[in-house]
Amino acid sequence: MTSSPASDLPVSLADVRAAAERLRGKAVRTPLLEVAALDQELGFRLLVKAEPLQRTGSFKFRGAYNTIAQLAPAARQKGVVAFSSGNHAQGVAAAAKLLDMHATIVMPSDAPLTKRERTKSYGADVVLYDRDREDREAIARRIADERGATTVKPFDDPRVIAGQGTAGLEIAEQAAEAGIELDAVIVNCSGGGLVTGCAVALAALSPKTEIYSSEPAEYDDMARSLAAGTRQSNPPGSRSFCDALMSTTPGEITFPIARRLLAGGFSADDAAVAKAMALAFDRFKLVIEPGGAVALACALQQRDRFRGRTVVAVASGGNVDRATFAKAIAA
Amino acid sequence: MTSSPASDLPVSLADVRAAAERLRGKAVRTPLLEVAALDQELGFRLLVKAEPLQRTGSFKFRGAYNTIAQLAPAARQKGVVAFSSGNHAQGVAAAAKLLDMHATIVMPSDAPLTKRERTKSYGADVVLYDRDREDREAIARRIADERGATTVKPFDDPRVIAGQGTAGLEIAEQAAEAGIELDAVIVNCSGGGLVTGCAVALAALSPKTEIYSSEPAEYDDMARSLAAGTRQSNPPGSRSFCDALMSTTPGEITFPIARRLLAGGFSADDAAVAKAMALAFDRFKLVIEPGGAVALACALQQRDRFRGRTVVAVASGGNVDRATFAKAIAA
Repeated sequence: MTSSPASDLPVSLADVRAAAERLRGKAVRTPLLEVAALDQELGFRLLVKAEPLQRTGSFKFRGAYNTIAQLAPAARQKGVVAFSSGNHAQGVAAAAKLLDMHATIVMPSDAPLTKRERTKSYGADVVLYDRDREDREAIARRIADERGATTVKPFDDPRVIAGQGTAGLEIAEQAAEAGIELDAVIVNCSGGGLVTGCAVALAALSPKTEIYSSEPAEYDDMARSLAAGTRQSNPPGSRSFCDALMSTTPGEITFPIARRLLAGGFSADDAAVAKAMALAFDRFKLVIEPGGAVALACALQQRDRFRGRTVVAVASGGNVDRATFAKAIAA
Repeated sequence: MTSSPASDLPVSLADVRAAAERLRGKAVRTPLLEVAALDQELGFRLLVKAEPLQRTGSFKFRGAYNTIAQLAPAARQKGVVAFSSGNHAQGVAAAAKLLDMHATIVMPSDAPLTKRERTKSYGADVVLYDRDREDREAIARRIADERGATTVKPFDDPRVIAGQGTAGLEIAEQAAEAGIELDAVIVNCSGGGLVTGCAVALAALSPKTEIYSSEPAEYDDMARSLAAGTRQSNPPGSRSFCDALMSTTPGEITFPIARRLLAGGFSADDAAVAKAMALAFDRFKLVIEPGGAVALACALQQRDRFRGRTVVAVASGGNVDRATFAKAIAA
């Protein structure tokens, strides 16, 4: 009820709290993990928010469910459609199933097999497209038009942002319960739904905490956009094994929130990400997918900056093929 | 305060509760994980108690800390000694360090490198021995005699059993908090400290829940001992890649508890254990070591028995070399 410094933004703490109410008993309150012996080695206190343990194996269920649960009855009957490289697909498919709705998912044909198969297992129709030659938004739009289905956007929707923000709300609550003051929270960023949702919650509840985005090296559009003050895009032909974080530009809705609330943006290359996945395996016993491990990679790279401080890295997902994982931890 | 059906046993619910008090803020209250979509595929409700997320990567810290914290000041000054293939070693080393004590650990020379290195990282002295030619108990006894150090037994000590039982106490509490009635809990068993500690807590708090031990196929001494009614041993030369579960016989203290409180014993071979590790990777995003995954393997093998029921598999540890893990999930 008090006015917040972010009260003119399209997503408020109240929206995130309402999302948390909708998600109660549906989403997992994922743990904030810590390895005491590792903290001593690193020289800073490192906590990992374990979204691989979330329903569907990534944070995406939060935003998808919060959005779909708010659809009017008439819209519910016509189902939902989404385009996604995988985690948003599973989030939407699982949320639709829980709410007794039909879902159609448009996925790139090079999405990891585990993500394609799992999406189908939730009862969704999967339509594949060629990432380099076809326009996924056009395909999704055509399906939405034909069936009257509602498109669930991957990030640029206040309902999606508020849903993802419940992860940040939990981080603030869990830190308070444990008596921990957080100096920084690093959040993986593709279009920016998760990082801005978390920022809305944390800016209100833990205003001294710095929030950073983390991106793959060749997909650092948010970091460059924050530095430039305007939305920047990644050049065509960029490549990364972080399949979950390959959006080309920050969202129209997410970027102004990010610009207001974020302290800056980090990025990490594939080798640093693989190293972070291996560390998570060795020490946290947590399976993190490449795109999910970028925040951890950035935290490790920023050891000097964070010396003596307390940092949360949000591990955003764990949906990775066995072969990719085995290769990453063998590197 | 009420009399329990197990009131004549050497470990009581009160002992487990006292251990939980000692461990507060030291041990992790590990989550009880569930994958909703998997339950539908399996035909029963499967929960995994995630002890890989425990301090030192296995449940062993619980019993070690509960024991060492009860030593008298004079004993504390002379330090502790333990023999262990790895997880007990790390548990004792970490507990001793937290309590400002010296620890010497006697380990087999073929223990996984990650367990040897991690044990040293807690500041413990590591003494290696040849598993096939030397007597680890004699070595540990000599060190204890020379230094006046206290031997922390791996399982056959009421303080150790009570400490491990805090995992079972948490399972009972977490199930009650979530409104879940547990039909069965399957607990990995080497000497029997964990399974009997959990059984003491669960028999008192959730008396309708059946408790089963789970062992590697060639190390099924507890299952055979329960069937025979007397302690049985494993034949020399038995092999398993479950390095954490290679005791030769149930304990003198643990067996009578097991005989009273357990519904029976399961076992699983290496192939079934590797499959369980892969399932934990794919669906729970949890790293489980071979010895830690036997309970999960047994739960999966007992699908028909458990149809429609609710079962907890205790994943007891996650300390596994990268190469061993990569091979297991590739199988």
